[in-house]
Amino acid sequence: MAIKPGSFMNHKAYLQKLRDNNNPGELPFSIEEYQKRIKDVKCAMKQAQLDVLLISEPANLYYLTGFSTFAVYEACTLILPLQGSPALHVYPTEIPAAWATWVDDIYPFDWSEMDSLSSQLAVILKERELEGKKVGMELTRGGFIPKTFEQLKKLLPHNTFCDVSELVLKIRLIKSPQEIEYMRRSGQITAKGVNASLAAIREGLTDTDVAKAGHDAMLGAGSDFFCMDPIVNSGHRSSWHHATHCRVMLQHGDNVYMEYGGCYQRYTSPMMRTGIIGRPSKQVLRITEAVKNTLNLVIQGAKPGRTCHDVAMEVKPSYQELMSEMWFMGVCGYSVGAGFPPTWADDITVIAEGVEEVLQPGMTFHLPIMFRVPGEFGVGLSETIAITEQGCEILTEPDRDLYLVDI
Amino acid sequence: MAIKPGSFMNHKAYLQKLRDNNNPGELPFSIEEYQKRIKDVKCAMKQAQLDVLLISEPANLYYLTGFSTFAVYEACTLILPLQGSPALHVYPTEIPAAWATWVDDIYPFDWSEMDSLSSQLAVILKERELEGKKVGMELTRGGFIPKTFEQLKKLLPHNTFCDVSELVLKIRLIKSPQEIEYMRRSGQITAKGVNASLAAIREGLTDTDVAKAGHDAMLGAGSDFFCMDPIVNSGHRSSWHHATHCRVMLQHGDNVYMEYGGCYQRYTSPMMRTGIIGRPSKQVLRITEAVKNTLNLVIQGAKPGRTCHDVAMEVKPSYQELMSEMWFMGVCGYSVGAGFPPTWADDITVIAEGVEEVLQPGMTFHLPIMFRVPGEFGVGLSETIAITEQGCEILTEPDRDLYLVDI
Repeated sequence: MAIKPGSFMNHKAYLQKLRDNNNPGELPFSIEEYQKRIKDVKCAMKQAQLDVLLISEPANLYYLTGFSTFAVYEACTLILPLQGSPALHVYPTEIPAAWATWVDDIYPFDWSEMDSLSSQLAVILKERELEGKKVGMELTRGGFIPKTFEQLKKLLPHNTFCDVSELVLKIRLIKSPQEIEYMRRSGQITAKGVNASLAAIREGLTDTDVAKAGHDAMLGAGSDFFCMDPIVNSGHRSSWHHATHCRVMLQHGDNVYMEYGGCYQRYTSPMMRTGIIGRPSKQVLRITEAVKNTLNLVIQGAKPGRTCHDVAMEVKPSYQELMSEMWFMGVCGYSVGAGFPPTWADDITVIAEGVEEVLQPGMTFHLPIMFRVPGEFGVGLSETIAITEQGCEILTEPDRDLYLVDI
Repeated sequence: MAIKPGSFMNHKAYLQKLRDNNNPGELPFSIEEYQKRIKDVKCAMKQAQLDVLLISEPANLYYLTGFSTFAVYEACTLILPLQGSPALHVYPTEIPAAWATWVDDIYPFDWSEMDSLSSQLAVILKERELEGKKVGMELTRGGFIPKTFEQLKKLLPHNTFCDVSELVLKIRLIKSPQEIEYMRRSGQITAKGVNASLAAIREGLTDTDVAKAGHDAMLGAGSDFFCMDPIVNSGHRSSWHHATHCRVMLQHGDNVYMEYGGCYQRYTSPMMRTGIIGRPSKQVLRITEAVKNTLNLVIQGAKPGRTCHDVAMEVKPSYQELMSEMWFMGVCGYSVGAGFPPTWADDITVIAEGVEEVLQPGMTFHLPIMFRVPGEFGVGLSETIAITEQGCEILTEPDRDLYLVDI
């Protein structure tokens, strides 16, 4: 079948049409905030003597440009030179996400060109006179596959490549007032989900039914798509680290554990709670007391100027005696912020023994205090906090305890 | 605070306790099915002259061992030697997932040992007398970060490393009867979600409210956690490839597009549908007819013995004349099966021009026929199919059309 020459809308024409139509934009931050972030990144690039940065990690891409997609598995790269304008190199399905950013130079490629990603990137670097220069990449993060990196090194033998996986993350560690506000909104959504699920627990329903109540309440409260779907487990499965719902019937005596993260403008403030069907055993009560004490001590101890190590060591006595009967990894907090599936953790720092990071206002942490007696049960309670000038602000809910389900 | 020496439950003791407790297992396939998969993989390893395979891609790990977790961002590797028993090297949070597999040899590491992943793997390979041997890795897939690969090559200078990203995927391409059965269950869950959301569309609600109805129905039907959360967009945003819900108000005249994948035992049969609020324009009707014709032709054409290319070329006339006004990538199908966030696509093959893969019974495809008029609207309809001896079986729903919302 004949079509008029030049009338076929390929990926480049699709981008042009989106530009022509000029639908309203959706950037979640002001252009000034993006400019500040880029300025901070360029400052760090100068210190590391980098000429250009290649960013493919989804949350870093989003943070710097507003590029937002659920399809984080598609290859997309921000080329950020120290001098000159940045560019986005994107898979065709992500053209609208690229168009929606503040970045003007967009290089879309066709799905049939997937095998030549590295040579396309090499061409872009050459066009921008970056051959022979020092290239920073995030080699310990998702987004960039080993093969593309191998090929890129061969195609650009005169360039130097170095791993700067921490560069953007260190800037993301301190959240702006607008970011904290999004995390407050997220915390409110999360709390609605958790409370709806706690209220839904009863014998004869499944763990999946409990998760359903959380999905319902969080979407009803306006959540974005989740970084991680609601996590629920019960009975002996609540002692299994990272297990989730799987149509398991709830029974009398079960602990029912949940960990949820409602998402607002890609920011997540997660929260854990535990319910119990019937009367808790003495061991469950004892473990619960330790969980509460530990969490309270982290919240009390998290103040600017202290190190993550100091806080972790201070709370250790509240659970150490139980460490012969239960599993706890010793991580009392991990940084959270902007995220995409499969995780809301932003993987920058943790509150744990040996971590000498100094707490500063604007840092945000999920405090995942969960103690598990292997093969038997687990109790988890947590909040998400933001470090303030004086101490910390709880972004989720201040009241926490084991939730008792009447039977 | 003093604790008794040796009484501290570290990650190794946690694993031992889980073993001692011996909770019931949850493997979704018979041990015979796993044995057949391993046998097929070893056969392919022999052909590629590999001595050992390192697998970190989440769906491949799951397929071969039953290893299942939502935390697919944590480093976990299957070491599969051609001779001798396999082993799992896992992050501590994934110890229960490793314990739940059929693999007996488990090497858990502590969270504080994350920086030495590559040297731990090197030690395991040396212990198993695999130094100097040929190692197969999946270098174009997720799971293995570039830095670990770089370090591993330095630590094992006498080993040969080669990219075998397709090896396990090619075996996964043909689904077993049990896998097809899980995909049927998934298709039923998906259809419930889509139908609930279509029925929920109305002016004054948001795209997020529509997604909520889908979450609710799919969890209610027993879905696992999703590979991708329900995708919904409306109005001009339905012309944006890979946009999703974002608290956008539905308006009279809007197209409302959805793409859902209920998940059962990690298998997903996705489905797209489109509703419209009010009377569709002539252009919407014209595009919808083309979408329906194209989808029907793919379903009619998908038969064993034909190539993906042949099917794609056969359906091209049904939309080619519209290609001056709309965006369609030309991919009429992509293989689906077992998956984890962030995607349900199994990334093995596509039904598209130039792809010479021959269709065989047991292959499963999502047929994502969506045509988008940039900046204005999109119409998508799709099913998931399994190739049978005679043609194909629809795993989702046979009836499909634009859904008209009365106003």
